[in-house]
Amino acid sequence: MMSTKFVTLRLGIKKNIIDGLLIHIPLGSKTAMITTKNKFAASPVVASRENIKSGTIKYIFINSGNANACTGKEGHKNTKQILHTLSEKLNCTSNEILIMSTGIIGRQLPIKKIIESITNSNLNIYSNIKKAASAIMTTDKFPKYLTKTYKIGSKNITFRGICKGAGMIEPNMATMLSFIETNVDLSKTLLKKYLKYCANLSFNSISVDGDMSTNDSVVFSSTGNIKLNMKSKSSEAKFLSCASDFFIRLASLIVKDGEGATKFIKLCVINAKSLVLAQEVSKKLSRSILVKTAMFGEDPNWGRIVASIGSIESSNIKPDNIKLRINNILCFKNGISLDNGSKALEKSMRKNIIEIAVDLNNGKYKQTMYFCDLSHDYVRINSEYTT
Amino acid sequence: MMSTKFVTLRLGIKKNIIDGLLIHIPLGSKTAMITTKNKFAASPVVASRENIKSGTIKYIFINSGNANACTGKEGHKNTKQILHTLSEKLNCTSNEILIMSTGIIGRQLPIKKIIESITNSNLNIYSNIKKAASAIMTTDKFPKYLTKTYKIGSKNITFRGICKGAGMIEPNMATMLSFIETNVDLSKTLLKKYLKYCANLSFNSISVDGDMSTNDSVVFSSTGNIKLNMKSKSSEAKFLSCASDFFIRLASLIVKDGEGATKFIKLCVINAKSLVLAQEVSKKLSRSILVKTAMFGEDPNWGRIVASIGSIESSNIKPDNIKLRINNILCFKNGISLDNGSKALEKSMRKNIIEIAVDLNNGKYKQTMYFCDLSHDYVRINSEYTT
Repeated sequence: MMSTKFVTLRLGIKKNIIDGLLIHIPLGSKTAMITTKNKFAASPVVASRENIKSGTIKYIFINSGNANACTGKEGHKNTKQILHTLSEKLNCTSNEILIMSTGIIGRQLPIKKIIESITNSNLNIYSNIKKAASAIMTTDKFPKYLTKTYKIGSKNITFRGICKGAGMIEPNMATMLSFIETNVDLSKTLLKKYLKYCANLSFNSISVDGDMSTNDSVVFSSTGNIKLNMKSKSSEAKFLSCASDFFIRLASLIVKDGEGATKFIKLCVINAKSLVLAQEVSKKLSRSILVKTAMFGEDPNWGRIVASIGSIESSNIKPDNIKLRINNILCFKNGISLDNGSKALEKSMRKNIIEIAVDLNNGKYKQTMYFCDLSHDYVRINSEYTT
Repeated sequence: MMSTKFVTLRLGIKKNIIDGLLIHIPLGSKTAMITTKNKFAASPVVASRENIKSGTIKYIFINSGNANACTGKEGHKNTKQILHTLSEKLNCTSNEILIMSTGIIGRQLPIKKIIESITNSNLNIYSNIKKAASAIMTTDKFPKYLTKTYKIGSKNITFRGICKGAGMIEPNMATMLSFIETNVDLSKTLLKKYLKYCANLSFNSISVDGDMSTNDSVVFSSTGNIKLNMKSKSSEAKFLSCASDFFIRLASLIVKDGEGATKFIKLCVINAKSLVLAQEVSKKLSRSILVKTAMFGEDPNWGRIVASIGSIESSNIKPDNIKLRINNILCFKNGISLDNGSKALEKSMRKNIIEIAVDLNNGKYKQTMYFCDLSHDYVRINSEYTT
């Protein structure tokens, strides 16, 4: 049973629409968080990092429409003031609240409106998960939420999550934020460990435009009482398989909503000499605008993929070792092209989901990455947004 | 006096147009070359690297339209055959010729046609530099060539160069190639040193789409007899200032012809703690599709620039230290925005040349980078090119 509650709010940042979310985390829950590695971490990120260290998290507060990033001392004062007002209203301490913020950066929050709204709102009228996901949207075209139950032995393992993010616009208007809960009872230590594991396979393995926002945060809460024996390797492996599947499904929604995206691309780099190399290759390819525009053009352009891999300076990749499959059709092997555009390959490119598999044939490490194409709409959204 | 001669050829790769160039380098000249760091270096690159090691270069042969890259053993056999045919015709040894190739990769050269054409052509009918530059064009919209004379003391120092390259398409159809000569008499050792220095400031400091081709090559020849005393630091500095100016002017033509480019952006990263950091920041920004689309939209988007810098994981950049100027207007300092779109700033964005200056305020190193914006035309060119 998961009793996390969502309260949607009108904070007055956006005109007459819901632009705030308060998450009530049930008593006795444990919570872990990972945040952006961006050096310009926003004020709410800095405050939340402090709070999660010091105590039990009871609430998460999120505003959309204005990201409170790059706002200096005044921005930090605003973060503190919101936390203070919430703590009085909710009868808890400031450090029992996580705070997140998404939207335009570099502008001060309309703090008076926000404080007024919090003070006057009834924070005990609950919304459903879809409305909660909608409350934190910025440039997202659809609310992103998911609930899924897996079976481990006789036990029903449930995950529930929301997320947002579709790119970075106006400037950096699309932080990636996510909250996920599970009904499995996990210690804070395990929760942290599993969050890191799952986020690496999901939120840290997606790319829309290769840039990292100043506000990115993923929160994982254990809110239920289902017991699993995590000391058993097989039991832990089963749980992680379910958890990572859930995380990947949820994170994939962000890629599917990538600005202007017409293709969802799953890239598997396999048999790499090291994990670092597998990651480097997958990052390079998923960020290559030549690869991304080729995907938009439905072109199985092995040349751009191979040249992009070859341009990784630090690696000791051997061209002749590489095998490249696009949609499971072998395109490149032994340093030469095997399919320069067969009917079957061309046809396979018309699907919405494209699979690229790069076999480096040099080791045992792998990395999977999910990304989207680069379309006319992406350029339009990111160049013509001026207010 | 520079007596390098250009012979343009019809090799039959492209239909009825000039697609080949032979450069006669005068006797007594010295030649240095730098080539792509791409692991998939093309067969002509591999052959040229060997040849320049072993002897004096008398000729450079370039074909356009088909890059002889990713062509395996047959591709290498073709390279050897072209060199052999040329050596017989020109009465020299194979290793006195540099060979370059640009165009579509992954397809075998029409070797019979090429050999026939070389055999039947008169290789002593000379063309001018403009025609020479045209002969090596692929997706280039204009031929790129430059001649410039500088004064050092009473001496006239002349540079003459051609180059090509505009991006990488169909697949990787736009290798960057360049040949530059100077009338200054330089030893092979100095020539190599100066080429590296100048190329780092020019051809290695330009970015159209962040990918490196399999065929990139820059050749620098000393073909004259003007003596400069390079043992004098000030004399050497003067020469390098002229040479790098010339290299930058020539390389900038590639950025100006960047696929779909509407803006030429000069990015100066200054006061960095290390050269590596300055380079990392300039690479990150010049490759950021968010920054590139903002420039296309004439938007002085400090937020994307700052967030992109912050996302460099390895660095110890302090956000509060950074000063950002766009077109010489201070936009960001002390962690906050100082200009969120003034009239003056907006107006300055309408120019064709945009200057971005990032002051990291943390050391004494700098890096300048030249790049272009990302426009609708870029996406069109790179997604709709299918033959």
